[in-house]
Amino acid sequence: MDKKDEALLERFGEHPTPFYYYDGDALHAHVSSLLSRLHPAVRVHYALKANGNVALAGLLRSLGCGVEIASAGEMFVAMEAGYAAEDVLYAGPGKTVAELNEAVACGIGCIHVESVRELRLLEDIAAQAGQLVRAAVRINPDNDLSGATIKMGGVPRPFGVDEGQLDHFFKVLEDCPHVNFQGIQVYTGTQMLKSDQILASFANTLQLAERVQAQYGVAMHTVNLGGGFGVPYFAHEQPLDMDHVIDGLNALAEQTRTRMPGVKLIIESGRYLVAQSGMYVCRALYTKESKGEKFVVADGGMNHYAAATFRGRRIRDNYPVRIMRRQAGELKEPKEREVEATLWMGQRDASAQTAVAVEQSLEEVANRIGGPLEEASMELETVSIVGPLCTPEDCIVKKAQLPPIHEGDYIAFPNAGAYGLSYSPLQFLGHATPAELLDFRGEVHVIREHGDRTDLLHHQRMIPLPEDVQ
Amino acid sequence: MDKKDEALLERFGEHPTPFYYYDGDALHAHVSSLLSRLHPAVRVHYALKANGNVALAGLLRSLGCGVEIASAGEMFVAMEAGYAAEDVLYAGPGKTVAELNEAVACGIGCIHVESVRELRLLEDIAAQAGQLVRAAVRINPDNDLSGATIKMGGVPRPFGVDEGQLDHFFKVLEDCPHVNFQGIQVYTGTQMLKSDQILASFANTLQLAERVQAQYGVAMHTVNLGGGFGVPYFAHEQPLDMDHVIDGLNALAEQTRTRMPGVKLIIESGRYLVAQSGMYVCRALYTKESKGEKFVVADGGMNHYAAATFRGRRIRDNYPVRIMRRQAGELKEPKEREVEATLWMGQRDASAQTAVAVEQSLEEVANRIGGPLEEASMELETVSIVGPLCTPEDCIVKKAQLPPIHEGDYIAFPNAGAYGLSYSPLQFLGHATPAELLDFRGEVHVIREHGDRTDLLHHQRMIPLPEDVQ
Repeated sequence: MDKKDEALLERFGEHPTPFYYYDGDALHAHVSSLLSRLHPAVRVHYALKANGNVALAGLLRSLGCGVEIASAGEMFVAMEAGYAAEDVLYAGPGKTVAELNEAVACGIGCIHVESVRELRLLEDIAAQAGQLVRAAVRINPDNDLSGATIKMGGVPRPFGVDEGQLDHFFKVLEDCPHVNFQGIQVYTGTQMLKSDQILASFANTLQLAERVQAQYGVAMHTVNLGGGFGVPYFAHEQPLDMDHVIDGLNALAEQTRTRMPGVKLIIESGRYLVAQSGMYVCRALYTKESKGEKFVVADGGMNHYAAATFRGRRIRDNYPVRIMRRQAGELKEPKEREVEATLWMGQRDASAQTAVAVEQSLEEVANRIGGPLEEASMELETVSIVGPLCTPEDCIVKKAQLPPIHEGDYIAFPNAGAYGLSYSPLQFLGHATPAELLDFRGEVHVIREHGDRTDLLHHQRMIPLPEDVQ
Repeated sequence: MDKKDEALLERFGEHPTPFYYYDGDALHAHVSSLLSRLHPAVRVHYALKANGNVALAGLLRSLGCGVEIASAGEMFVAMEAGYAAEDVLYAGPGKTVAELNEAVACGIGCIHVESVRELRLLEDIAAQAGQLVRAAVRINPDNDLSGATIKMGGVPRPFGVDEGQLDHFFKVLEDCPHVNFQGIQVYTGTQMLKSDQILASFANTLQLAERVQAQYGVAMHTVNLGGGFGVPYFAHEQPLDMDHVIDGLNALAEQTRTRMPGVKLIIESGRYLVAQSGMYVCRALYTKESKGEKFVVADGGMNHYAAATFRGRRIRDNYPVRIMRRQAGELKEPKEREVEATLWMGQRDASAQTAVAVEQSLEEVANRIGGPLEEASMELETVSIVGPLCTPEDCIVKKAQLPPIHEGDYIAFPNAGAYGLSYSPLQFLGHATPAELLDFRGEVHVIREHGDRTDLLHHQRMIPLPEDVQ
């Protein structure tokens, strides 16, 4: 997020809150920089699950990314975003027959097969369609070197085929003439912040690919290394050393050129690509006190950004929050606007259940998430920020040290571009769904319309009730 | 849930999974029985947040319930369900000006004011509209007698006005000629299973109402006692003794008749009314093994029924699950169908991280949730059931002892009528939204259409991308 608060408020304009705001220029710069530094044999596929917005997906396509989808719905968004079928990877442990049929029919780039059963099903479907289908096998490796906290492999998992079951898999593959085998995929974890562990996992996957090629005599076209590149959310998290990852990955690609000529490497990335260019933005509706504690009630909360609440698995502390104020009616005269804005990391002392300010790390955090840090000129106070839902779960900032918040102030959560809207129970309590705004090349585009009071009724049907029902 | 498995499978017919299935006859019987046993001075309002389906809400209306809403979206559903405006209570800590305007304009039954600030805002809005608006004050009482695990009062909370702030509230109320004061509301907790604690909380609220009436000289028309009637989900939970609650409540209503003549009592209930007549139903797509553990991949999971996963706050153990099989192609000959069905409570031994069957409590559980229990004639095995999402979070049954599950088997979660669909991140990974079926008086009505692959794109907008974006 590159823009200063004053400039941001101007970009928000009169768009009603709550909304997600994406800095398309920052996204462009971030992703282009990544892609330009990668070895030509490495392709990045955007994991659409992180953010299913069609315009964001389209922007990433135009920057050169492929896409990774996990349902017919995501496939439809990918097509609308302009991806060619051959640039689409299709993953997921629960693909239905209907979905596989659709994927085969459109000539999808590659299907990640996650079980022997799915392989057989795919062969049947492709045979029936009289088509060849490109497929790779997702492997759950014996060794897990990722060090990921959210492990996807190396332990008993519903994902992929155990390394120990590969004999069986490749035996069955011999009887699948309609399956055009592409290679292997390994995805061991998500939200990884240690470059050494990521590279160790990549190297492990490449060794596994060589063993597979040698042992089963299959031609390997792609090795999908997965991804899991993390972004820091909390004060204790250090950002991923991406220079190190890229250097190491490029070296592996160069080795692969000699060891497995012609093989392309695939990286899947969702969170790392889009998280930091997005913000969830709501506004303070009410400020109040209860039994000595201060509360701010905002117009959005867990219904739109569940990851910031304790419902989100990853929550260990408050997310950073940015408070921005503008005086009413002065929007058109930015010079006269009073802007009191800063970036706060509200960290709780979990053991003492008391709030502590972590001012010493504010600048560091600001640098990390790319935001500006202005000097705090006011007293801090301990406050919780809640959303509008009638549940104690709807607490998006708990007992943090923040500058006084006034009704109408903007409350923005940086780092919200991934697993924000997509991960949230949008219908819970029936509030309108948030808009999504994409700020790109000087224009703020509405890439999701703000919902309205009819959202909750979508797909519903009333039935006539008998008169005598009592 | 009254129907036996074989009958249930027939009712499911050819409706594609996943879906929510509601037994409208059971709901009718359950709610009518409750309403018929209550003192005439007690009115029950359905808390729409538990389940926002318009047809269910309509059925509850026709049975005699009022409704409690918490957003403009829920208000719209209530209107579509046929509720008269005066039968609508409007609660929530974050009502916007637009929402309050709408509520005033339609002549809503009562607005629960949650702060002095909101009271002033409401007065302004009503004055501007030249209307009187009925309002009650939600109070956060000094004493919490509920014993609720999810406390909504008695502690610092964003909900309502602290008892200690009432002097100020009623002083401000004197300057609000457009606010037609109705009474007080207290809601101290949810999912309460102890009748004594519920009744103690009700009695406490009535004493508070008397004090308020005496101290501030306001005429009291309603005392809203809240609700929080729980339903058991887990083996260790005992069902609420509803006979005791009703007897106690009716006695309080009788006392109120003399102590506060003319005052009506209001009960709000969501979960208790609708939970037990609903089921979430998905089907097994794949069965697989990983490193010695068995997994079943179902066609639905946390995207539709998040409460069953560890994401749901209330989860301490697996929810009960019912496995039903029918042979393919034999749907139209029910007599020949092979039905192996039973109800299982898969309980994990948390300390040992191993699965233990709790067969001894199966019958008890079956009685509680009103389902049939058939003798298990097969070996049990330890299995986890996951949904189709690419995340380890999407685990809806973890290491439970279940009969062998085959591809195509129905996997049903009873007790899913409340906080099921409404609480779930429906868009996560872009699978089609589930249907909702209401089985009422011999007919299975589709009260929510099964979504399709365009669901994820709803409200989204693509933008034209410049050619030179790279």
